[in-house]
Amino acid sequence: MSTESKLAVVLLSGGLDSATVLALAKRAGFVCHALSFDYGQRQRVELASATHVAAAMGVAAHRVVRIDLSADGGFGRNALTDALAVPKDRPVDGEIPVTYVPARNTIFLSLALGYAEGVGAFDLFIGVNAVDYSGYPDCRPAFIEAFERVANVATAAATAGLGRFTVHAPLLAMSKAEIIRQGLALNVPYGLTHSCYDPDAAGLSCGHCDACQLRLAGFAAAGATDPVAYR
Amino acid sequence: MSTESKLAVVLLSGGLDSATVLALAKRAGFVCHALSFDYGQRQRVELASATHVAAAMGVAAHRVVRIDLSADGGFGRNALTDALAVPKDRPVDGEIPVTYVPARNTIFLSLALGYAEGVGAFDLFIGVNAVDYSGYPDCRPAFIEAFERVANVATAAATAGLGRFTVHAPLLAMSKAEIIRQGLALNVPYGLTHSCYDPDAAGLSCGHCDACQLRLAGFAAAGATDPVAYR
Repeated sequence: MSTESKLAVVLLSGGLDSATVLALAKRAGFVCHALSFDYGQRQRVELASATHVAAAMGVAAHRVVRIDLSADGGFGRNALTDALAVPKDRPVDGEIPVTYVPARNTIFLSLALGYAEGVGAFDLFIGVNAVDYSGYPDCRPAFIEAFERVANVATAAATAGLGRFTVHAPLLAMSKAEIIRQGLALNVPYGLTHSCYDPDAAGLSCGHCDACQLRLAGFAAAGATDPVAYR
Repeated sequence: MSTESKLAVVLLSGGLDSATVLALAKRAGFVCHALSFDYGQRQRVELASATHVAAAMGVAAHRVVRIDLSADGGFGRNALTDALAVPKDRPVDGEIPVTYVPARNTIFLSLALGYAEGVGAFDLFIGVNAVDYSGYPDCRPAFIEAFERVANVATAAATAGLGRFTVHAPLLAMSKAEIIRQGLALNVPYGLTHSCYDPDAAGLSCGHCDACQLRLAGFAAAGATDPVAYR
């Protein structure tokens, strides 16, 4: 199999990080299947961003899987799916924030694994990183390693020796500024991405939630201007 | 916390094995939340069986999560979700069968993990066993161990030291006859369960698919009569 025909499944949230990951996967020669989740997140603009990013960057397919992770679905109250206040202007200090969704990346990678086995891919890409970690346990290297191990014992494809699954988390050790510099060099359309946990009805970002704070500080540190609109 | 108030999440398919697991979890003193999946399986009678079993055996809650794992959803063709012929009267020989659904148990346990974290449970029960393994890689001890490791690095609850997740697979080393003998001793309502991969429109079991063969042989070996109706 040539490098050019290798398939990958890329988790695409609509945010800055996963768009950069898609660019890195494409640069590495992968034909990419993008996978997004409609998990009841309050910021619906995120899924529209994922669709625009996938279309602009070029993917073999973009699939949105619907799954209910809201408290009504039994999955625990959190500020991303439920009517809790999103914290503003707080120091990003390593405490697990109210925006934590139980087992979210485990669920997302599991579905990516099933999708990958279906399309014949052995490479999964996820945009977790050390800065965005900020208290999320499922954004740590130990989680990525543990999940990769599951992937290689759980699947028929790996068990039959057709290949070995790799979970790529290329942003893991990068700062937000490094991610942005890398993405700008690869022409990632950051103007199409969305990061804010608390956009207004028009989709404008708040500039004060954890996600906006990290994003704005990253652009500033990269010496670049964030192309998205803030209210 | 007393033994009586410990919570567990039990994966309940509507089949014989998971109903036995629910009985074992209850005997161990757990208050059980049952979790079933509507993943596009062709045998819709399975979900009705899960609902009847949960009601008859007594659970704190029974939730059915809908998720599309069919080939149309990108998850690979298989005989449980797609219009493929279900094999009949074949030797159950350790080959991965056409009824394999990519990454199914990984996806199910991931959702059970998120649900468990939401309700405050640290114990997950799944009815995989060595006989039913019959070629499914995600029914092996190595898979259960690898997933338990993921659970304990992925979640806020475990990371914060509130508890340690345990994935219980009490049927792992049991034969079908042992499972049935155990279940009969615990008054599991096997007449409400459903195993057949290819029921007719009235819900009657075929008696010839892998699942029926294993079930019938199990009842015979246990010296008992299967209470479900065959066509």
